[in-house]
This record gives sequence, structure tokens and C-alpha cells, in this order.
Amino acid sequence: MDESKRSFLKRAAGLLAASGLVAGGAKRADAVEPPDVAPSMKAPGAGMSEYGSPAKYEVKVTRTGIRSQPGTTGSGASRAPLESLDGMLTPSGLHFERHHSGVPDIDPATHRLLIHGLVKRPLIFSVNALLRYPMVSRIHFLECSGNSQVLYQPAPPNLTAGQTHGLVSCSEWTGVPLRLLLEEAGVDRGAPWILAEGADAAAMSRSIPMAKAMDDAILALFQNGERLRPENGYPVRLFLPGWEGNMSVKWLRRLKVVSAPIMTKDETSRYTDLQSDGKSLMFTYPMEVKSVITRPSHGMTLAGAGLHQISGIAWSGNGTITKVEVSTDSGRTWVDAPLVAPVLPRALTRFRLPWKWDGAATVLKSRATDDTGAVQPERAKFIAEHGNNAVFHFHGIQAWSVATSGEVKHVYA
Amino acid sequence: MDESKRSFLKRAAGLLAASGLVAGGAKRADAVEPPDVAPSMKAPGAGMSEYGSPAKYEVKVTRTGIRSQPGTTGSGASRAPLESLDGMLTPSGLHFERHHSGVPDIDPATHRLLIHGLVKRPLIFSVNALLRYPMVSRIHFLECSGNSQVLYQPAPPNLTAGQTHGLVSCSEWTGVPLRLLLEEAGVDRGAPWILAEGADAAAMSRSIPMAKAMDDAILALFQNGERLRPENGYPVRLFLPGWEGNMSVKWLRRLKVVSAPIMTKDETSRYTDLQSDGKSLMFTYPMEVKSVITRPSHGMTLAGAGLHQISGIAWSGNGTITKVEVSTDSGRTWVDAPLVAPVLPRALTRFRLPWKWDGAATVLKSRATDDTGAVQPERAKFIAEHGNNAVFHFHGIQAWSVATSGEVKHVYA
Repeated sequence: MDESKRSFLKRAAGLLAASGLVAGGAKRADAVEPPDVAPSMKAPGAGMSEYGSPAKYEVKVTRTGIRSQPGTTGSGASRAPLESLDGMLTPSGLHFERHHSGVPDIDPATHRLLIHGLVKRPLIFSVNALLRYPMVSRIHFLECSGNSQVLYQPAPPNLTAGQTHGLVSCSEWTGVPLRLLLEEAGVDRGAPWILAEGADAAAMSRSIPMAKAMDDAILALFQNGERLRPENGYPVRLFLPGWEGNMSVKWLRRLKVVSAPIMTKDETSRYTDLQSDGKSLMFTYPMEVKSVITRPSHGMTLAGAGLHQISGIAWSGNGTITKVEVSTDSGRTWVDAPLVAPVLPRALTRFRLPWKWDGAATVLKSRATDDTGAVQPERAKFIAEHGNNAVFHFHGIQAWSVATSGEVKHVYA
Repeated sequence: MDESKRSFLKRAAGLLAASGLVAGGAKRADAVEPPDVAPSMKAPGAGMSEYGSPAKYEVKVTRTGIRSQPGTTGSGASRAPLESLDGMLTPSGLHFERHHSGVPDIDPATHRLLIHGLVKRPLIFSVNALLRYPMVSRIHFLECSGNSQVLYQPAPPNLTAGQTHGLVSCSEWTGVPLRLLLEEAGVDRGAPWILAEGADAAAMSRSIPMAKAMDDAILALFQNGERLRPENGYPVRLFLPGWEGNMSVKWLRRLKVVSAPIMTKDETSRYTDLQSDGKSLMFTYPMEVKSVITRPSHGMTLAGAGLHQISGIAWSGNGTITKVEVSTDSGRTWVDAPLVAPVLPRALTRFRLPWKWDGAATVLKSRATDDTGAVQPERAKFIAEHGNNAVFHFHGIQAWSVATSGEVKHVYA
């Protein structure tokens, strides 16, 4: 057992002792006999299955806040139910969605990816051809730049953690380093941009800087061990670690090496950030350092004073989370919450802190720091700097109030 | 970009160059125009969904080798289709199954876990009570001790990698350290054993050494971010990192601290290893160092000479994988295959090696080493030492033959 584990257990055990026995709400069972045979033991259970599903008792744990543009069914988003999840990974079935014209039905046998433009040898790849190339695997978060956009609003929304922050998810992505294919095509290394185009009805398109393409960009074919899910770009998507989600173009059909950004509809009509001075920021790629407490969070009710666990996630598109501080007294004092290993660059990082609630009303907050030294700002400071005209890149501190009744609500504090 | 990545890309690029251009099977596309609008771009796609599923084109990627005891539907196993997966994680829907009397239907609202026996304060926990305790998350493999048992047979089986090795999977497990609850119950630290009992119709039961329970055992509540799947012990299972899967008792209802192993039916009628000298090994807990090449593997046909990617998994219940050697010339020479980060203790570790196939018949093998210095043995050596009466703990080297036709088959070599 390593020292960090020993220290965690010691702290946890100390808290349990300080909380009195049976702190977690377990019942004393002195002189208890083994319970009667449970109903589930009286007859054989269900058989094996070809592909499993969650328990029927978890049927309410679904993507949440599903919203589409008026008149459409697939131009919108769905959110991961963060308040029901724990750990660093997001099950693929609950990974958030953001589509510009729905989820296309693409037969991998006929799908092709073209690399052309400022290259010596334009190339067309089938999916089977891509599967023969050397691959890498990386655990990374993906966040829609519009995540938490309701927090630009003047009044705190009456929404859960998933509804406000659930446009972020974390998966293991496996695929071919884009650099290999660009080099095979004889890319003009002086060309500064690449147009990436999806095979959806929106032909979702973004201009990608060459430096990112040659650094850590991958053409992802697998997600969490199996082939990509349709809503995540099956059969192949671009994946740009740490950058706003829309740039990781799904259902990728074309990469054109070009000498200037293409200024597609997707980077002019949206994905620019209108500031309070009336100017707009463009090409704001990395998602900033951010965190949110997922439990307890809005919509939950604490069962009573005593031991509770604070659990949350932190992430940064610019690097690795180095610290998450938690305040259980409305921001007066902060303590470092242990981070759950492995702490990986550009991945969700779980933090947890045992908390003895004394039953008084309070506010819970978390504040993340990354290895560039960037610190997640208070919401008021963030809004003061950026205004609230924008809808993208909100990453201010999230506050949850706890009432004496145990009710947890979204507050600006 | 760190050095290991640079080195990987350099090696991969070198191999591509050595293989000639367009080595992965891509087509030259000189003077090509962007392809016509794909069919998927002509109409909006499907809408968002509450819980996603794999693409319909992947419908054949299912658990495999589903077998049950005669006259039962749920006393048997299903296997993860390793040959179709990549990365280190197994999607929960494809995680292998091994049940002794099917998957019980357990309502988490009424399920209880009893801790009793040699403790000061017997305790009963509801699932909601468990959820209030401090938790840990860890990425670990789980392997059935009967994995690869067909390889004890004298003739090589005509089976895929999943069918022979698919009783292993890897997930992120989140739950409460068992030590915390045992200490809360006032466990007698001198008591050497704990009986763990499941709430299935088999009342699956094993005796667990106290040292393991107090070290890294957890009561798992979450798997890959969401609550446990039914076939993996919903709502709560024991999880013993690195040890044979059946000891991580699913649907856990009872832990009784005892002074001697209970010798339950599950550790007398099975889960002992009959050796060639007629003696049996009992309580053989850790799963030994092992690896298998998942692509290419039995049942696949290489599309032709040129660049291919060798991809496989390695694991050890005794620690961390430190090396995987691959031979592409029937075991004459071996090269170290790069391991995919993060390389975690008692987790599946992906290895990959670009391979230029010259079109001649050959045999592929992989050989894993862990940080205790243990090396995966050749099958012949393993059988010579252990005989082939046993059905558990096979971990010999796996060989795949490649014919000039490209056909890949299971061989003993």
C-alpha cells in the first residue's frame, strides 16, 4: 500500500471516528443473525447476453437537457448526467452529444477520407486502410465550448450539475496520429491550416492549425475499447485533445491543407466569443481550467448531518490538473481535495473529500488549478472580465447552497 | 510532445517509409477533386438519444462463446470479443460474464449488506448508506481463473482470441475501501478470514484472506463511471484487484469475519487446480502474468504483404507490466513492443508494434514480464510443469500462425 493510499485511509478513518460510529448511516446490527434468504436467491437469475445494459433500476440515469433547434430533431445537444456518475470516465452511452444536423448513418465499407490541398500526394483512405496504421490510445476529456453557457445568465439556473456542466465527458480514444498520414501525403510543412469537414448534413467544418495537427491530433476509430459510437463520429473522427469539442470534427470525410483559415460558417456564425467591449474573440481553442462538484449538487437533498462525501471533476485543456481546492463554508476557507490517480493531461480528474456536515446552511465550491498555473476564476470575476454576451468558454467557479433541510441548490455566491 | 511520443512517431514513420508509400493500403489520389457529396449529407441525421448504442454496422461485435451448464440459462460464461477491441478499457456492455446461477434482479432500495462474525459491532448497510462513504477509483482488469482453459487441451482450438482469452476485461471501478467498513465494525484484526456471500441463487461464496481485505479490496458501486451493470454485481460487489474473478463476489450481501476458511462449495467443488502429480492447489489467488495478440489473431486474414499493426494486451495480477516482447518469426527473435500509457498496476496494458509483413508464412507470439520479474512461460513449459488436468490459471504464451494467404490461425508453437 503506498503512502498516498495510507494517508487517504487515515484521513477517512479519522473523519469517521470524529463523526461518531456508523457515520455513513449504517444501522447497528448487534446480535443480528444473517438476513433471511433474499428473494433474488430463490430462483435462477437471467442468462448471459450479447451486449449488456444498465440495471432497470437506473433507467432514470440518462442523458439530460436534450434540446434541438426549433423544427429539427438533431441540431442540438444532450448532456451527460454528471450528478449520477463517479470516477473519471463517462460511459459511451451517456457521453454528451452536440450535432449540427443530427447523427448521419454512415456505412464504414463505403466511407472515405480524403487528404488533399497543399500536399505532394493526395490520398484517399478507406476505414480498413486506416485500421492498418500504427495507433495510439489516450484518455482525454471532450468539452463543447458552449458548456455551462446558462451561467452567463444574470440569475442562477434551476438546473442540475449535468444540465449546466454535462457538455463534458471523458473517454479512452484510440486512433492513428494525424501527423503520420499528413507526412505520408507529403504535406507542405509551411502550410499553416487544415480544413476538416464532416460527412453530416451540416458538412460541419473547421480550420485547424497545422501545429496542432502535427502535435497530438488523432483520427479516432475506437472509444472506450470499442469502435466509435455513431453520435461520436462513427466510423472516424478528428480528435484534438483539450480543444473545444466542435473542432474534433465527427464523421470526418476531408482534410484539406490550405494557406489560410477558411472562415467556414461554423467559425463565423458561431464559435466566436462576443466580449463586453463589443469585440469578438475567434479561434479560442483550448478549454480553460474548470471544475464542478457533482455530489452533492443541485436537486439532491442530504439525508442529515454527519458524514458525506464531496465528489467532483476537474479538467483543463491546457494541461494537467495539479490542485482542486474545496470550500464548505461559502468560500471563507479552502482545503486541498485529494485527486484520484491516474491524473492525466487533458483528462477529467476526479477529486473527493469526506465532509462532516454540521447541519447548518452553507455553500460548497470547488476551484481547480492546472500545471500552467491557471486558476479557475470566481464567476463574478469571470463575468467582469468577459461580460455576458458570449455563450462559449464559461469556466467560473460553481457554487451549491446547502439548506438546513439538506436541500442543495444552484446559487451565485 | 514528449520523447516517447516522438520516438513512437519516428519509428512508425520509418516503417512507413520502408514499406513504400501509401503503405497502409490507402489509394493515391493525384489530381483528385473533393468527393461528391456523401449520401449521409443529403438529409438531416438522427436525433439525440437518452442512452446510446453501438453503430448498427457493429452488430456482430458481441460477447462471444456464450455457454451455460446443461439445463440452465445462466450458469456459465460469455466472453469479451478481444479481437474487435482496442485500447485498455472494455466497454461495460462487452465485459465478460461468469455466473453460477444467472444474473439476479436486485432492487437497490431493499438490498442490504451485513458485516458480522468476529467484529465488535455487526453492521447492516443499505446501498444509500454505502454511497455516503469515502470512495476510491481504480482502473483494474478482472479475469476469470478459467480464462484460456481450452489451451490445456492437446490440440490447438479453432477459436478466436475472444473465445480463448475473453474471460478478461478492464474497467474503472469506484467504491468504498473495504478496510473502512471493517474498521467501523470493529473487526478483530487477528481474525484471518472473511466469508463473502452473493445474493444470487447460487449464494456464490468464497473465503477471503483478511490481509487482502485490509489492503486494496473495495466494495464497488460504479463501473466505468456509471453504477455497476447487473451482470457485474449490481448494486454492490466485492472487488479484489488482481485476484481470480470469482473471489470478487458479485451482488454482495454478507461478509462474515471468521477464524478459518469456510471451505464453501465454490472452493472445494471448483476453483482448485489439479496438478500432474495428482495433488491440487487451493487458494491460488493472483492471476499470473499473461498476454495475447488480439490483432492479427485467429479468424482474420491479412489483406496482403506490407504494413500491419500488431496490437495486444498484457496484464498481471501481481503487479505492473514492465515489458512485452513480440516475435514475428516463430520465436527466433523478439523485440520490445511499446506499451501504451498509462501503464497501471493490475490493469490491462495495450502494446502495439508496426509490422512489415513480407508475405511469407510465419508465427506471431507475445511474451509479457511484470515488475516482480515474472515472465509469461511458453505453453509447452507451462504444461510440463502443471500438467493438463487443471482448468484454471492457464497463462502460457499464445501463438498465431500466418499463412502465405494471409490467413491467421491458432497454433501451438
